[in-house]
Amino acid sequence: MELVPRKRLEIYSGRSHPELAAEVALHLDVPLGQVDLREFADGEIYCRFGESIRGKDIFIIQSHAYPVNSAIFEQLNMIDAAKRASAKRITAVCPYYGYSRQDRKASGREPITAKLVADVLATAGADRIITLDLHSGQIQGFFDGPVDHLTAMPVLIDYLKANHTADTVIVAPDAGRVKVASRFSLYLDMELAFVHKRRPRGKANVVEALDVVGDVAGKRCVIIDDMIDTAGTICAAAELLISQGAAEVWAMATHGILSDPATKRLEESPISKVVITNTLPLLPERRIAKLEVLSVAQVIAAAIGAVFEDTSVSDIFGGENLS
Amino acid sequence: MELVPRKRLEIYSGRSHPELAAEVALHLDVPLGQVDLREFADGEIYCRFGESIRGKDIFIIQSHAYPVNSAIFEQLNMIDAAKRASAKRITAVCPYYGYSRQDRKASGREPITAKLVADVLATAGADRIITLDLHSGQIQGFFDGPVDHLTAMPVLIDYLKANHTADTVIVAPDAGRVKVASRFSLYLDMELAFVHKRRPRGKANVVEALDVVGDVAGKRCVIIDDMIDTAGTICAAAELLISQGAAEVWAMATHGILSDPATKRLEESPISKVVITNTLPLLPERRIAKLEVLSVAQVIAAAIGAVFEDTSVSDIFGGENLS
Amino acid sequence: MELVPRKRLEIYSGRSHPELAAEVALHLDVPLGQVDLREFADGEIYCRFGESIRGKDIFIIQSHAYPVNSAIFEQLNMIDAAKRASAKRITAVCPYYGYSRQDRKASGREPITAKLVADVLATAGADRIITLDLHSGQIQGFFDGPVDHLTAMPVLIDYLKANHTADTVIVAPDAGRVKVASRFSLYLDMELAFVHKRRPRGKANVVEALDVVGDVAGKRCVIIDDMIDTAGTICAAAELLISQGAAEVWAMATHGILSDPATKRLEESPISKVVITNTLPLLPERRIAKLEVLSVAQVIAAAIGAVFEDTSVSDIFGGENLS
Amino acid sequence: MELVPRKRLEIYSGRSHPELAAEVALHLDVPLGQVDLREFADGEIYCRFGESIRGKDIFIIQSHAYPVNSAIFEQLNMIDAAKRASAKRITAVCPYYGYSRQDRKASGREPITAKLVADVLATAGADRIITLDLHSGQIQGFFDGPVDHLTAMPVLIDYLKANHTADTVIVAPDAGRVKVASRFSLYLDMELAFVHKRRPRGKANVVEALDVVGDVAGKRCVIIDDMIDTAGTICAAAELLISQGAAEVWAMATHGILSDPATKRLEESPISKVVITNTLPLLPERRIAKLEVLSVAQVIAAAIGAVFEDTSVSDIFGGENLS
Amino acid sequence: MELVPRKRLEIYSGRSHPELAAEVALHLDVPLGQVDLREFADGEIYCRFGESIRGKDIFIIQSHAYPVNSAIFEQLNMIDAAKRASAKRITAVCPYYGYSRQDRKASGREPITAKLVADVLATAGADRIITLDLHSGQIQGFFDGPVDHLTAMPVLIDYLKANHTADTVIVAPDAGRVKVASRFSLYLDMELAFVHKRRPRGKANVVEALDVVGDVAGKRCVIIDDMIDTAGTICAAAELLISQGAAEVWAMATHGILSDPATKRLEESPISKVVITNTLPLLPERRIAKLEVLSVAQVIAAAIGAVFEDTSVSDIFGGENLS
Amino acid sequence: MELVPRKRLEIYSGRSHPELAAEVALHLDVPLGQVDLREFADGEIYCRFGESIRGKDIFIIQSHAYPVNSAIFEQLNMIDAAKRASAKRITAVCPYYGYSRQDRKASGREPITAKLVADVLATAGADRIITLDLHSGQIQGFFDGPVDHLTAMPVLIDYLKANHTADTVIVAPDAGRVKVASRFSLYLDMELAFVHKRRPRGKANVVEALDVVGDVAGKRCVIIDDMIDTAGTICAAAELLISQGAAEVWAMATHGILSDPATKRLEESPISKVVITNTLPLLPERRIAKLEVLSVAQVIAAAIGAVFEDTSVSDIFGGENLS
Repeated sequence: MELVPRKRLEIYSGRSHPELAAEVALHLDVPLGQVDLREFADGEIYCRFGESIRGKDIFIIQSHAYPVNSAIFEQLNMIDAAKRASAKRITAVCPYYGYSRQDRKASGREPITAKLVADVLATAGADRIITLDLHSGQIQGFFDGPVDHLTAMPVLIDYLKANHTADTVIVAPDAGRVKVASRFSLYLDMELAFVHKRRPRGKANVVEALDVVGDVAGKRCVIIDDMIDTAGTICAAAELLISQGAAEVWAMATHGILSDPATKRLEESPISKVVITNTLPLLPERRIAKLEVLSVAQVIAAAIGAVFEDTSVSDIFGGENLS
Repeated sequence: MELVPRKRLEIYSGRSHPELAAEVALHLDVPLGQVDLREFADGEIYCRFGESIRGKDIFIIQSHAYPVNSAIFEQLNMIDAAKRASAKRITAVCPYYGYSRQDRKASGREPITAKLVADVLATAGADRIITLDLHSGQIQGFFDGPVDHLTAMPVLIDYLKANHTADTVIVAPDAGRVKVASRFSLYLDMELAFVHKRRPRGKANVVEALDVVGDVAGKRCVIIDDMIDTAGTICAAAELLISQGAAEVWAMATHGILSDPATKRLEESPISKVVITNTLPLLPERRIAKLEVLSVAQVIAAAIGAVFEDTSVSDIFGGENLS
Repeated sequence: MELVPRKRLEIYSGRSHPELAAEVALHLDVPLGQVDLREFADGEIYCRFGESIRGKDIFIIQSHAYPVNSAIFEQLNMIDAAKRASAKRITAVCPYYGYSRQDRKASGREPITAKLVADVLATAGADRIITLDLHSGQIQGFFDGPVDHLTAMPVLIDYLKANHTADTVIVAPDAGRVKVASRFSLYLDMELAFVHKRRPRGKANVVEALDVVGDVAGKRCVIIDDMIDTAGTICAAAELLISQGAAEVWAMATHGILSDPATKRLEESPISKVVITNTLPLLPERRIAKLEVLSVAQVIAAAIGAVFEDTSVSDIFGGENLS
Repeated sequence: MELVPRKRLEIYSGRSHPELAAEVALHLDVPLGQVDLREFADGEIYCRFGESIRGKDIFIIQSHAYPVNSAIFEQLNMIDAAKRASAKRITAVCPYYGYSRQDRKASGREPITAKLVADVLATAGADRIITLDLHSGQIQGFFDGPVDHLTAMPVLIDYLKANHTADTVIVAPDAGRVKVASRFSLYLDMELAFVHKRRPRGKANVVEALDVVGDVAGKRCVIIDDMIDTAGTICAAAELLISQGAAEVWAMATHGILSDPATKRLEESPISKVVITNTLPLLPERRIAKLEVLSVAQVIAAAIGAVFEDTSVSDIFGGENLS
Repeated sequence: MELVPRKRLEIYSGRSHPELAAEVALHLDVPLGQVDLREFADGEIYCRFGESIRGKDIFIIQSHAYPVNSAIFEQLNMIDAAKRASAKRITAVCPYYGYSRQDRKASGREPITAKLVADVLATAGADRIITLDLHSGQIQGFFDGPVDHLTAMPVLIDYLKANHTADTVIVAPDAGRVKVASRFSLYLDMELAFVHKRRPRGKANVVEALDVVGDVAGKRCVIIDDMIDTAGTICAAAELLISQGAAEVWAMATHGILSDPATKRLEESPISKVVITNTLPLLPERRIAKLEVLSVAQVIAAAIGAVFEDTSVSDIFGGENLS
Repeated sequence: MELVPRKRLEIYSGRSHPELAAEVALHLDVPLGQVDLREFADGEIYCRFGESIRGKDIFIIQSHAYPVNSAIFEQLNMIDAAKRASAKRITAVCPYYGYSRQDRKASGREPITAKLVADVLATAGADRIITLDLHSGQIQGFFDGPVDHLTAMPVLIDYLKANHTADTVIVAPDAGRVKVASRFSLYLDMELAFVHKRRPRGKANVVEALDVVGDVAGKRCVIIDDMIDTAGTICAAAELLISQGAAEVWAMATHGILSDPATKRLEESPISKVVITNTLPLLPERRIAKLEVLSVAQVIAAAIGAVFEDTSVSDIFGGENLS
């Protein structure tokens, strides 16, 4: 008994960010697969795929949005169900990868939760991961199988190029983010500066203050980060930049978490434009005027297509460094 | 360089049910260990143990209470942190084990989430599990290490004995729970009956109705289950029993989940007494008059003590069948 | 160098029940593969596949029949050989899954042998399992890969429908089997009863006796179980049913183990018909007149075909609950 | 809560060779632990430890004697039960390790069953193995934990020394066993010869015959092997040696499997003395006059003692090469 | 049979940096254990421990010095031998952890060798790792067991404090190292600057040049890095700093790899002082006048002592952030 | 979305023996894939595949030649990179498998490095291994996946047949190699002899000398071994054979390691012809006149082709015993 096997792509979405999944599916011109997902009264998640997925190449899209533990656990349930239902290959697509900042022990006796997330995805049965702009590239090494680490950088850079003016300086909002800012600066041939914590000059007994290193007076400062959570760091940086004579401040990041009180802080801050992407869902009340949301659906769709068809994912980024 | 190692017991509690953990610690006459647990604005859990746990025998108590995914994930974080901080042995104590009803594929393309929970506990680093009255004893086999499967049955039976009257019949609320009810019936030398779904006699086109098998007229019926969730099954059974002439109906279960609208249903039902244990926290608004809550803290404390001191756990239950 | 891969199905049989394997192969219209299996003088099993199985989709059929340890070990040998000979995928087909009653610790310090069987199948190299009517559906969760859990229920129900008379009641032979009996009762719209252990009414000092719950007088009682081993439980139940006025007693089960003295007991019992399937081989001396053997070869063949062709297995059972 | 842990040794025996286990226990001056082992009517093994083994250092002695699959499976059951009952460490003691000759693929599409045995011991939960005179030392590498590979060589050599006469030659019964024979020869300063298969000189069309290499005329030949199974090789070698003028032939091996027709062959052969050890049980009808059985109980007891007390096992053998 | 176990510490050194191991052992007041390590003529490493290590707590010190592959493989051999010889616990002590810069995929189709190193240490049998100043803290997450991540920062800071002058600025030699430099700056209350790559101002067609961000004129610049390999980056930075008016340039790093042509470059550079530690061996010809080597033996010894005695490692660093 | 998958073969070579890889590729008529491999100044290996290998069937050829640790580590790097770059299947092709002589613990407290090599290949991500003439066939069992164990025996036998003269005797150079020599002897119908260590006859106080067993006077002796390392054993054997009257001595082995001083020894020895294969690279200065090098490229190419096309590898050897 013999046959020529056929490979079939199916895309399923968890409930954390169905709009993005729908947009990705549209780009790929495939329908989103049917899956019954709901909560029982006690909060346990129920999951059942609506059609046979035996032998199929399954992509399970779930952004680790708020509430993050449920988002992750729902994805684990979907992966476990797909494994037991004989999917041929299971790819966990995590546009935003939860707990990515807990990627090392900053103090003793802490967990490394970003590793835990990779481990439980593997335990549930994920064969591979697709994700975007991890907080640190090392997280790729937390997973034993292939990780396609995509970046929204081309999308953000295109935006900057399209909105270019002279005299822009790229600013890292703290010492740990200089590397990413430096990559933008190099790519766009712009100046670089960064903000960091220090004890204020000439003042004893005051533990920390912010300081800017680099020349920002009279310039448009574009603060680059991988994510905007409560926006505390970025708004403090913006105020410092203005106080140092910056002409204008923009903020730019792949992941717009925007936890409270981010929206309020951004509105009240001297930042004139905030650019994020749609890796996370955006509550309507957070759609403020100065916020611009770019789409990464095309990037994710291209990666899924390449994974399915065994063509190069790096080529999508022109061979650019993905970490 | 040589020394005689000492074994040190430490008990830590997640945030799902600190009262039970405190009561357990009191029974063991040890303080609860310090651990910093909180949520960031974006919902991610932060965890850090407050003191060195290097080389210690750690018990991490977390009932998988509502919201269950966060309760489980918090326990995983604690286990991961304990593993990386060089705990000698880590026991996950789960007074209520989440997702225990999803212990098999009831339909195709579902997950087996009770297995997933065991797997992620093991992945995070749990060496062993202590739990109570699993929905099915087979869940013990989902974990590769030792599982101490405790039971609240002695606590419940003592209560029944202390409140005994003639003519009691033990009732299983559906066909799948007859076995547990049968064990109570055998132990207490009481009659047994059960309620099950059937098509109503003589009525076509009606898919399902309830039927009682066994003689209940004029008797006190004690419905036995492992858990009361929304109380739908149990209240429907109670009404049927009353309609069949039962003199009185009690309900008894180890785990009082009491998801909405359980409290309302129980209050409005003909059930005159509801007996549960404290494996799960009880919201104040759910403390209704007919509800009796028994404590299992002593049972859990005895098991932790036996595990620590390498004495028999079965002895706590007089060699009774634990599953 | 490039080619279009072809998928090739091959079915091999261990020595425990070659008739069933042959019947399955016939349904699929493929020849049984050649494999050299024999015992050395010291009892060790020798195994060698007779032709190249490199890259093939291999199904290894072995019912865990008496002597069960050798049957399992022979299957492990075949799986190990297939793995090392580069089979593409290995499915262990276990029409009867051994040790399935030891699926939990009934007392402390026992093994969970049903989990051990799943573990050693995985260790040897089985990628997936096909089995029928497990003693408990939770055993599916003991295996980390996909388990196709088939059921002989449609075959048994067809038989009951074809031999229908009025006034049939489905009887569970003990409290733990009520759930399965209930499913038959619901499906066939028949009454339900069950037998269970209890202390005899009004007699002190006697530990246990049997009691029937439900109305059986004047009816045909069909005792439903997953397996008939020594037939002790089922024959005792039958006698009790007759003593309670049952008009007739039948017994029905998927797995006919029929260990001694089952045949003698069944012959001497008041049971008038015993219906089993051919998941296990039947010794000629056990073919008694009241015994009817139905074939599940078609069910297994359909499942193997679906697994090979990546079509739905649930569809074989009309989406019926498989556990 | 703190205590000084104590280490407790317990020895349990499977049912394959209780005499040896009892003798080992006697040497260690500990009682054999109680364990309930029996077969159900259908051949499944039941196992339950008779007392708490929580936290203990458990040694499970089981020689892989006939019927070998059941002997192995019984040991797996005991290990699984001990693991789930929280034994601190589990050592599988296999005086004779089953399937040790199937230690490589002699032809394509065969299993490597000796690896499978190691794998299933590990899967069940064995932390370490103690065994004697493996067919090949490489089998140690099949197990990921520590293997204490003991040898009966000192026992056999003492016997030879005590029964020494001039003009002895050590003979390997085939080409693959020359290495072991060579070790005896070197240690005892005796001559060495070996028997091997060849096409008979000057005869076409005859595929194989035996040939002896080395000088044996007028000497006492001691054939050394690791095991005597059906005794075919050894008896054929003995006849050839006599035909080449050997004065006398002895046979010596650690493991006396003695599968039929070994006893008959040995009795009828020109071998005058057969020396084995008690790693395997000996049926009464196989106790022939020319058979001498030496005990290895002391060797095993010393190793168990050393493992328990963390002293050197190599020292038992004076640092001798154990493989 | 019962005894009170004793814990025994033993320290073994590979051949990459025996001086450091000896110094560590001296601090702990234990002798270095005997181990026979050598190369065969074909380059394979031979390893044998000189005394019984059964049941001991073993620390295997090996800095991953040149030639790095052999250094790692030798440590793997030692770990494997210790595992098979029944060591109770094995800690891989890697003062310098090899391949730590290959901690993520900088381009597609690269390995993550730092993860591979963690994986092979675990595969060989390492239970835990002690290491110093990893290139990125995330590498801790690459290992599934506990990692004690020590830092030479206190040693370096003490040196800076003891050699303090006014007007010092801490300089990161590239954008990726700003975070570490920032930690020094914050701790010492000194200014911060960094060097980064950019396209030279006003020059087309030239791909990259260096730029300094921050104010360095007239100051002592202390370049901080985790390691000095060929010293190319650090020397280019120094020249740029001098060209920008720096009064003096120092370079400071934990790991002095000093691959050719580092020594020549450093000698010819404007750097006036190079401070490293002894995590790696130093060839005599590389001991140039401006080079200062501080010892971390005390730090490693304290950590080993704490691990052995189950006391806190964080306390050694006053609770300082270890990553 | 659906497609018919295509299988694509790609062959990559490490840097240890590119000539052999090129020859293999030529036989298969595929180009060697591009991979950037080099050492950094500090000795760390850099690896990057030059084109997308997503979904491909990758064969990574690396003979474990001198320096062996780097050769192995380079192969691990390539495998890890291929795994993370989503290769469909990765086969480690090891014409010479390093550390194969360390395949068991010859003394206590040694590693089993041949197992360690198999383990680290698996850890890095190798799905299967192709190798030639392992020192012991049991090493196949060290790897959990399929091992295609090829043999150069047909190539060597063809050479012997083509250079046949009367009166040839096959000689094993020590007791452990008699089995392989015996296989040649049986296949070619030639006499067999072997050399082994013994205490010299009639001389006390001298520990060891060599002795030959079998008749060699006046014959051409062909010493057969799996490898020639320093050639000490083989040259000593040759001298003994000549001293016993051998007419001529040849030496033959699959693997020509030829570590110093092998070349010098062979030149000065009475051996008139040395036949090896090209599983290892040969330094120009080692190409002495009496050395004949046969190619195994055709054998390896045939095996790779069969693995890729799922045809039988055993057939390449006419079903010959491969171990």
